[in-house]
Amino acid sequence: MATISSHFLKTPTKIQSLPKTHKTHFSTPFNLPLPTRSTSKRTGSTRSVGAPTRIRCGLLIEPDGGKLVTLFVEESQRDLKKEEAFKLPQIKLNKIDIQWVHVLSEGWASPLNGFMRESEFLQTLHFNSIKIEDGSVVNMSVPIVLAIDDEKKSEIGGSSCVSLVDDDNNPIAILNDIEIYKHNKEERIARTWGTTAPGLPYADEAITHAGDWLIGGDLKVIEPIKYHDGLDRFRLSPAELRDEFTRRNADAVFAFQLRNPVHNGHALLMTDTRRRLLEMGYKNPVLLLHPLGGYTKADDVPLHWRMKQHEQVLEDGVLDPETTVVSIFPSPMHYAGPTEVQWHAKARINAGANFYIVGRDPAGMGHPLEKRDLYDADHGKKVLSMAPGLERLNILPFRVAAYDKTKNGMAFFDPSRPQDFIFISGTKMRTLAKNKESPPDGFMCPGGWKVLVEYYDSLSQAENGRVTDPVPASSFRK
Amino acid sequence: MATISSHFLKTPTKIQSLPKTHKTHFSTPFNLPLPTRSTSKRTGSTRSVGAPTRIRCGLLIEPDGGKLVTLFVEESQRDLKKEEAFKLPQIKLNKIDIQWVHVLSEGWASPLNGFMRESEFLQTLHFNSIKIEDGSVVNMSVPIVLAIDDEKKSEIGGSSCVSLVDDDNNPIAILNDIEIYKHNKEERIARTWGTTAPGLPYADEAITHAGDWLIGGDLKVIEPIKYHDGLDRFRLSPAELRDEFTRRNADAVFAFQLRNPVHNGHALLMTDTRRRLLEMGYKNPVLLLHPLGGYTKADDVPLHWRMKQHEQVLEDGVLDPETTVVSIFPSPMHYAGPTEVQWHAKARINAGANFYIVGRDPAGMGHPLEKRDLYDADHGKKVLSMAPGLERLNILPFRVAAYDKTKNGMAFFDPSRPQDFIFISGTKMRTLAKNKESPPDGFMCPGGWKVLVEYYDSLSQAENGRVTDPVPASSFRK
Repeated sequence: MATISSHFLKTPTKIQSLPKTHKTHFSTPFNLPLPTRSTSKRTGSTRSVGAPTRIRCGLLIEPDGGKLVTLFVEESQRDLKKEEAFKLPQIKLNKIDIQWVHVLSEGWASPLNGFMRESEFLQTLHFNSIKIEDGSVVNMSVPIVLAIDDEKKSEIGGSSCVSLVDDDNNPIAILNDIEIYKHNKEERIARTWGTTAPGLPYADEAITHAGDWLIGGDLKVIEPIKYHDGLDRFRLSPAELRDEFTRRNADAVFAFQLRNPVHNGHALLMTDTRRRLLEMGYKNPVLLLHPLGGYTKADDVPLHWRMKQHEQVLEDGVLDPETTVVSIFPSPMHYAGPTEVQWHAKARINAGANFYIVGRDPAGMGHPLEKRDLYDADHGKKVLSMAPGLERLNILPFRVAAYDKTKNGMAFFDPSRPQDFIFISGTKMRTLAKNKESPPDGFMCPGGWKVLVEYYDSLSQAENGRVTDPVPASSFRK
Repeated sequence: MATISSHFLKTPTKIQSLPKTHKTHFSTPFNLPLPTRSTSKRTGSTRSVGAPTRIRCGLLIEPDGGKLVTLFVEESQRDLKKEEAFKLPQIKLNKIDIQWVHVLSEGWASPLNGFMRESEFLQTLHFNSIKIEDGSVVNMSVPIVLAIDDEKKSEIGGSSCVSLVDDDNNPIAILNDIEIYKHNKEERIARTWGTTAPGLPYADEAITHAGDWLIGGDLKVIEPIKYHDGLDRFRLSPAELRDEFTRRNADAVFAFQLRNPVHNGHALLMTDTRRRLLEMGYKNPVLLLHPLGGYTKADDVPLHWRMKQHEQVLEDGVLDPETTVVSIFPSPMHYAGPTEVQWHAKARINAGANFYIVGRDPAGMGHPLEKRDLYDADHGKKVLSMAPGLERLNILPFRVAAYDKTKNGMAFFDPSRPQDFIFISGTKMRTLAKNKESPPDGFMCPGGWKVLVEYYDSLSQAENGRVTDPVPASSFRK
């Protein structure tokens, strides 16, 4: 590993502000970067004018709660814990439960050290944040909970620990010092999504038919979660990502969450962000290109295909592999817009990112019943910028990119000449790929587009429109 | 006015804790008082052992934001402002809007200085709190917003100010530096109530048929809101209440929010709270008996009758008028349980209360569609105890009182002898009063019960079960 020599920004440096329409009765609470360069009041060091503020050297942004939580049983104790687990009441985990065990075990939700107890659940629902021991507040916007039914509850009885097992009854983890409390599904859904309309993918998949009780406790995971799908090596934990950023001597880390194929508009944005960070005085800003790897809705492009597509984007040179880390974020997707984008950002702090790129309508989707988007397209970035516990994170609002006919490529939309731009929606992109048509030149690198066409081709060939055996992604250059 | 000599507690003194079931991954964030006496780390003064901590003398608890907001036009400017108002685009206020203008104008919602702009609205919905200029957080859990429709929006056009008028087009206030933003009613309801079930009284009354836009801005109220219903003299503003507490040399103020007739169980609780505060070393704890005076649902006892009943309770000597201030809280009622109880508590801080009594299922109601309570009966006090911005307030959880057959009176429920207690629900109480039957001796003072019987009598006599002319309440002893 290289010597730790990177410098990390601890206080927000201002790059870009939201439009002035967000007047408030109080001071604007947005922590958006402004175009001017700031100097720190906390350091008295002499620096060249205009250099970014650096409070501490050799340290990435601190994880929430000050310490990255990891919830693994020590290797020497595994067999012992497995034996112990077999004697406890068992809770069978479904796929999404296991993804949450994964998330918790590696500390993405630090300082949470297990499935939420009621106090954490209520704070999440009502305040999107949790107060910790030292009186400070960490962001926590989506409930990370485990549901059980009446039967399981009475089976657990007075036991203070339970084991969590997979489909084949293999113990995955032990939940200690448990607390069982009511699962008011309607209230959980309403407060998380701002609607109770039937048809919310995550709710349909993981809540509506779940048990009427939630069980919280301290989690101990017997061994790291693996999926054996050819992609495990891309599932870097927050600790591994931190090591990687340090190894690369990164002096800023900017995270880009995505669950869609990367087109040249995204690429433009990521490249432009790096350029701006360099202009601010950073020597080596590193991009964390961080596709979500957990549950996604049926019409999203599956993880395997997305990873294949991202690989092509790097191979085609659209993004620089030297300054890009591609890794999989193991969380399931809620599609809960402004509520969920906070989770996406908070988890990336724990992985060492101090800049977070936020787009139009992040984690949004169409309303399940009405002909409109579920969320206002601007609420995500506004809520994110005001969220308790995220003050340390620099929020970088996405500048809208569209196809510029005058340049035959993706460019930042210029409102002074709207006639020159074409917006290519996800739906439009899917329709083109399904029909094996080509998008306008410069919309996506040819290799990346080819992967998409292959995916939709495989879909139409598969029975009932479902792919039976996804193609394993080949190796990535990092 | 008496010399200001009262002492007010600025930091929580511990009286009573919640049961230990609320284990959390972090430290318990409840700010509930414990049975032990605390001493302050912040004062070095020598005090007799066991005396309560007193950080500052002669000052009530500070209003949120440090300063009590009042939004009235100076008396000398009224005519000028009225003239100005006539020239502006006009928004007609309904009864509930006017109640909110009242609430805002007197600073119950300090530091809010007008109907919410979008930034405040979003923070309220997502975080139940708002970040203010100095970086600190104030609690704000219910949206205080003004809705307008498409037509009104286009009528306002580019104007930066509007006037707010009553039914007869008399100007009530001016809203300056306005911001108009979308009113997503479904999301507002879901996030405020945790359900979108039709039949929520406030939503039916004030949201569902309201316009699709919200208009925020800085409010200037031309003259204090009066209702001319014989009860205006009981509508003390936060500033007037603070003066009253100071005049009485109160050294602790404990608030009791209610929207129901007072029975002896309530009285026991209030008396017992005072006793406990005296035991803690306070010399003159004063009760703020604070019935809610704004919109309530159709089957609640109307304000006039409640005030008449409260008066009897004081006249019958159930509560001591010397240590009780009865006043009307002008807010409309949301029936939004754990979300709304925060608003009820926060507003009382602004009126000078540093202790807040919270009962079972505060601001709760039955689910509009299902046969269950909308909220878990314990969530109100739990959420209140964890709420951001309410850390300064001492939360006093209600001990359940019931009719003790062995004492022929209301007593705190003793779980070791449940057979001795009868719980008399609101529904049971209403049924008895409607049928002119008497409750068990000692349930309510006879004068108070008589008022209730009269009320239900007037109801059954009135056409369509609605009282046409409520009896004005006679004067109170304070």
